[in-house]
Amino acid sequence: MNLDTLYSELTLKTNAKLVLLVLDGVGDVATREQGYLTPLEAAATPNLDALAKDSAQGRMIPVAPGITPGSGPGHLGLFGYDPLEFQVGRGVIEALGLGLELRAGDVAARANFCSLDAKGIVTDRRAGRIDTAVCEELVALLSQKIKKVGDAEVIIKAGKGHRFVVVFRGKGLEGPLSDADPHREGLPVPQAAPVNPKSVKAKKAAKLVAGFYQAALPLLAQKKPANGFLMRGIAHQPEIPLFQDRYGLRPACIAVYPMYKGLAQLVGMTKLEGPQTIAQQFERYLAERANYDFFFIHFKYTDMYGEDGNFAAKRKAIEEVDAALPILLRQKPDVLVITGDHSTPCVMKGHSWHPQPVMLHSAFSGSDKLERFTDTGANAGSLGVFPAKYLIRLMQANARMLDKFGA
Amino acid sequence: MNLDTLYSELTLKTNAKLVLLVLDGVGDVATREQGYLTPLEAAATPNLDALAKDSAQGRMIPVAPGITPGSGPGHLGLFGYDPLEFQVGRGVIEALGLGLELRAGDVAARANFCSLDAKGIVTDRRAGRIDTAVCEELVALLSQKIKKVGDAEVIIKAGKGHRFVVVFRGKGLEGPLSDADPHREGLPVPQAAPVNPKSVKAKKAAKLVAGFYQAALPLLAQKKPANGFLMRGIAHQPEIPLFQDRYGLRPACIAVYPMYKGLAQLVGMTKLEGPQTIAQQFERYLAERANYDFFFIHFKYTDMYGEDGNFAAKRKAIEEVDAALPILLRQKPDVLVITGDHSTPCVMKGHSWHPQPVMLHSAFSGSDKLERFTDTGANAGSLGVFPAKYLIRLMQANARMLDKFGA
Repeated sequence: MNLDTLYSELTLKTNAKLVLLVLDGVGDVATREQGYLTPLEAAATPNLDALAKDSAQGRMIPVAPGITPGSGPGHLGLFGYDPLEFQVGRGVIEALGLGLELRAGDVAARANFCSLDAKGIVTDRRAGRIDTAVCEELVALLSQKIKKVGDAEVIIKAGKGHRFVVVFRGKGLEGPLSDADPHREGLPVPQAAPVNPKSVKAKKAAKLVAGFYQAALPLLAQKKPANGFLMRGIAHQPEIPLFQDRYGLRPACIAVYPMYKGLAQLVGMTKLEGPQTIAQQFERYLAERANYDFFFIHFKYTDMYGEDGNFAAKRKAIEEVDAALPILLRQKPDVLVITGDHSTPCVMKGHSWHPQPVMLHSAFSGSDKLERFTDTGANAGSLGVFPAKYLIRLMQANARMLDKFGA
Repeated sequence: MNLDTLYSELTLKTNAKLVLLVLDGVGDVATREQGYLTPLEAAATPNLDALAKDSAQGRMIPVAPGITPGSGPGHLGLFGYDPLEFQVGRGVIEALGLGLELRAGDVAARANFCSLDAKGIVTDRRAGRIDTAVCEELVALLSQKIKKVGDAEVIIKAGKGHRFVVVFRGKGLEGPLSDADPHREGLPVPQAAPVNPKSVKAKKAAKLVAGFYQAALPLLAQKKPANGFLMRGIAHQPEIPLFQDRYGLRPACIAVYPMYKGLAQLVGMTKLEGPQTIAQQFERYLAERANYDFFFIHFKYTDMYGEDGNFAAKRKAIEEVDAALPILLRQKPDVLVITGDHSTPCVMKGHSWHPQPVMLHSAFSGSDKLERFTDTGANAGSLGVFPAKYLIRLMQANARMLDKFGA
């Protein structure tokens, strides 16, 4: 029997409230330089400590051993979707990151303005890194002049600097396509082509991209230095089973950054907009508690400071969450998980493959007799080291939402 | 998406040097009789201890829970090849163990001399355990008289006592074949037959075995007590993807015993011959450091003394490695792993299924805050208990050879 089928069959309806609090990139490694302490270990976290006493802990492998996930695979894994099975292209992630609401089948591309010479050779892949304001002007021009290509709607949105995204919304489209980008200067812009040459839908998508170039390049011809553009990571939004159908839980997302709202939306979570601080996010949970069963609360700054290699700031970000935690606990969820989507060790200044620590608290989690929630401590937890895709099933079990299997 | 494909796509070229130091069978169990200490725990290992402080630890499952591997599956797993997918027949292992250089498609058999009565009934399956010298004489006779069977080259090599191996090198051959061995006295020697009766290549191999018997038996007819022979584990050398293609690393093997050189050669490692002691092996690594990216260094004696049930000697063998370790560390690899291919508990006097401890040291391994490298201590490590086949992927990650997956 298929395991997902079994989980579905065993899923019961309850009134339980589940909260998944993601401290992005919270996982770290202990190094000599930092006195063998991770940011979680160095931080003063009285509220997390108090929870730890009555929680189970462990560590999670985001995708597979040694694989460093981007935010897309990291969050899909957390949401219980195998990141190898459900791949989300870079264009889609980028579009979600800019707050575009994609639909299944939309084909999205990361794009950026570039400089071309008279023969169409790329002379500067970033058009001298034009200002965001210039990019916005050019995108406004393109948006105004190009509403459709063939029978597909075209949506263009400016990003930061020279970057923008293009979304094609039409029937019978799919990615991935090869990049319309020579990846270095001195070459012309190649045509985007289907990665799978047998895909009729990808052929149609490639035609739309070519059509978009045909319509857009004349509009930019007199612009300097941004008289051309490149497109990469051209992919479609995949069909992903809805979170609610999969788990029998009405899900809501309380995130600040568009990328994470987008990833939540991808699996059908409702975005609760407004909150800017973690305290406000917890307040929002209290306010919306009756309307949803599952809350995904996303905190970005642990990852951001990890990427900066700023240990002190990462530690302080953790302390900020800890200080706000009593707000969330005013109406304690039946199941509360605190974890990351991956590790972002300060020493690496980037995402990594190291399993992130996870703490699960419920009336049935039991205690691992750990006094704190830390990376190293979690090694000794009862959850062991396990693939992130099982996390929500464990949350369901702790919510008594999973019936007994067999007699 | 297939996980191996993903790993391949993410693999980057770097200048990192990786070392896999295998203390064969190092894993053990703590028992009352030995004061609840394993050999690793009882040994004085100041150099391993110093490394432990800045390393990650865990335990590895060689094949699957409860499966005790031979050296073949044990090492294939370590090298990152699923031992269930890539099976190497006993004949091949035996031939490799005798130092024969096999090619893909060669069919190899373990063989041993036996005694037959006038009717061809096996009266002694080991021919009274003849001396190695006698075996070598008989093999020399057979080798001299039988160069080919059909269109296939025949290679015969003597082992210890009554044992030898036979290799058929020709076109269009494959195993496995059933044994030409009744497995007890009082029966005739059965013909080897294809395990898969539909395999044309195996039928051809079976014909060669029959032809070999036809040519060899008359040569032995007057010999006493070794007037016959049995053949077992008749299999071909499988096609195994090359280590270098799989990992993008130029691999070298520094081993003393032929079996391990053979297993390394099976995946395309270069054998660096000469060193006899572990200190010499480490010196050889220093000398060859510029020429390879990955070094497999094999130390046999931990397994040998485990098989003898000799706790004190196993402990001493570990201390010998520890004492030599500073040589290796003169030019510290970017990633250093110390582990076994399996456990060989003294109390079992043989290989076992107990997950072997593993220690991984790199600039990004982090510290598990363990003061020593031991079986029990490794239980608390951040690597958890994981299948051995992922080890090299973790080494690649620590060498920053695996790019980020997804945006």
